[in-house]
Amino acid sequence: MSLTRIKEGAAVIEVPQKVVEHITERNEVFYNPAMAVNRDLTVLLLRVFVREKDRPIKVAEPLAASAIRSIRILKEVPSVEKVFINDLSSEALKYARRNLELNEIPPEKVEVWNEDASVFLLKTKYYDYVDLDPFGSPVDFLDATAKALAHRGVAGITATDTAPLSGTYPKTCLRRYGAKPIDNEFYHEVGVRILIKKVAEVFFQYDLPIEVLFSYAYLHHFRVFVKRYRGARRVDELVKNKFGYLLYCHRCLYRSTVPLVRWNGAPRECPVCGHRLDWAGPLWVGELWNPDYAEEMLKELPSVEHQPETKKLLKAVVKESKLQTVGFYETSALGKALKLPFLPPKKVLLRELEGVETHFSPEGFRTNLPHEEVLKRVRNLVRE
Amino acid sequence: MSLTRIKEGAAVIEVPQKVVEHITERNEVFYNPAMAVNRDLTVLLLRVFVREKDRPIKVAEPLAASAIRSIRILKEVPSVEKVFINDLSSEALKYARRNLELNEIPPEKVEVWNEDASVFLLKTKYYDYVDLDPFGSPVDFLDATAKALAHRGVAGITATDTAPLSGTYPKTCLRRYGAKPIDNEFYHEVGVRILIKKVAEVFFQYDLPIEVLFSYAYLHHFRVFVKRYRGARRVDELVKNKFGYLLYCHRCLYRSTVPLVRWNGAPRECPVCGHRLDWAGPLWVGELWNPDYAEEMLKELPSVEHQPETKKLLKAVVKESKLQTVGFYETSALGKALKLPFLPPKKVLLRELEGVETHFSPEGFRTNLPHEEVLKRVRNLVRE
Repeated sequence: MSLTRIKEGAAVIEVPQKVVEHITERNEVFYNPAMAVNRDLTVLLLRVFVREKDRPIKVAEPLAASAIRSIRILKEVPSVEKVFINDLSSEALKYARRNLELNEIPPEKVEVWNEDASVFLLKTKYYDYVDLDPFGSPVDFLDATAKALAHRGVAGITATDTAPLSGTYPKTCLRRYGAKPIDNEFYHEVGVRILIKKVAEVFFQYDLPIEVLFSYAYLHHFRVFVKRYRGARRVDELVKNKFGYLLYCHRCLYRSTVPLVRWNGAPRECPVCGHRLDWAGPLWVGELWNPDYAEEMLKELPSVEHQPETKKLLKAVVKESKLQTVGFYETSALGKALKLPFLPPKKVLLRELEGVETHFSPEGFRTNLPHEEVLKRVRNLVRE
Repeated sequence: MSLTRIKEGAAVIEVPQKVVEHITERNEVFYNPAMAVNRDLTVLLLRVFVREKDRPIKVAEPLAASAIRSIRILKEVPSVEKVFINDLSSEALKYARRNLELNEIPPEKVEVWNEDASVFLLKTKYYDYVDLDPFGSPVDFLDATAKALAHRGVAGITATDTAPLSGTYPKTCLRRYGAKPIDNEFYHEVGVRILIKKVAEVFFQYDLPIEVLFSYAYLHHFRVFVKRYRGARRVDELVKNKFGYLLYCHRCLYRSTVPLVRWNGAPRECPVCGHRLDWAGPLWVGELWNPDYAEEMLKELPSVEHQPETKKLLKAVVKESKLQTVGFYETSALGKALKLPFLPPKKVLLRELEGVETHFSPEGFRTNLPHEEVLKRVRNLVRE
């Protein structure tokens, strides 16, 4: 079998040529170059995370495949005690082991397991960091992850089933995530918020509160980093304040949220234009980022060999993390809803609406202005 | 240590005397005599279930303790291939092993494991029957149970955390079960429906539809038996039709349900008396029993040595399974709400309201009449 050598970050790995050509779940050893941004951000986040700890961290990669991620963590994150590498495929582990050698990882720094991912997590717990990077949905592994994280541990969770989460397959989303997605201009943000809600409810059932450190959508994946804490009272507060439904008007773009536990009191008609409101959720209406974390990650950027897209995404997130609205506006959606004869330049919109850009969409922006004020200012802009 | 010999059904077991005196989670080997009814009903249900199969069934008891349940299943259910007995406590397993011997269970009929319950289930799957009988909540084990059940397999699930499920600790219920309980006359039925909702959503995320075969509340536990099927489309139907919110009026006892996916359209005021409506859920608004199953279980009763309470409960369920309303009425609650000068005899109420009794409450009854008709007929009865 012909092998290809790939360099990413500080790691060099060898994978079969066919794997790079065809990314499918069937490829036993899985290397997806589009995921380099995902791994860059993981390394950056962990470089910030380890500073909180007064000891080296213990890491698990339950779906390790080629082990590229574990190798990068070991080489690029200071203060890692050990990485537990697991894959159900013994074929994948052959490559993982070869790659560990290729990168001269000291044997005492890794432990390799060949188990069902959940069994692996439950048998080797507790971890400071667990990385879930499945092909498809992470739901299969959330229960074991919640149980396997140490106090103040972090989970990095990828979902590549973005079609259900984004509203293309709403029924699948209802079954899998217990929430309704929506087809609007910020559908991917809604998808990320549904993913976080699902993760949160798995943790909450065990009285484990979470904090969202970082989250994003990029190409065909969503990714969230959550930190686990302790305390039933804190969970109560999160359930009360951070779980909600999104209300959305497809006619005038009005959006608001209603707390999940106060669903029976939500308006049914748009208070701005009177149109029947659509909805999404239940979803996470809390923060998508810890702004300090995002900023510190950006500072780590020069120390990590990264993709150009990583920098772009991170810089955008640092900005938008300062203005954490639920949902954002898009120029073209505004133009369509308001039947504008032309679209105002985004720069002008940002200025006039006190907006900040979002990484979710090149033409999207967040603003704290009330919806009616947004509509008024946009109309005025076009009239001028 | 002084041992006590206990006979239950066709089984004889020995447990330390102190265990029978003090039922707590800390008792390493756990035998709760109040659970005899639970085990009776399990045996009865399995005697019906095995008739569906053209081969002997494979059974798991992940939290086996004294193994009394497994021994009863082996001795009282025909056509059991093997029972997998697990307990995390090796001390408990000593007694379990001794009890297996005491009952002359052939060694090839059992396999004893000493593992975390979820790890055990995942490593030994697939099962035709999994019995979850935890001290407290079963939520810890639901994920592994959903993964460990074979197609058309059944799970018997106990919850002894009835206080949260019944509305005494609503915040705990929200955290653990993701649903709000209610303090009304049929709070225990609501608790059972919240438990089923929780079980269902764990199964549904893996595209596994369920059917509720049997459920009940008895003393300090709730219990549900669900059968696992296949098919995403069937899950879609269940999510749409069997998940809902309960709306309830504390003033006039009005009750109705609204499908979960059509929450934003529910009335906020009682359509009968105008009072603000309370709510519970999300919960299972589907069937609590397969009436044929209940009837067949009753027919098995003479073949199984059982508690008198088992017969009483089963006979009540057989009747109420013919009239599966969400919620029921209680004589005294009606008296209070309608400010009746005296309470009509239950017998008269049953006749006049075309009602059937419920096992949930000695003074409860179900009726298909509209709420306003119930109020009218009760008022007329008292006037006469």
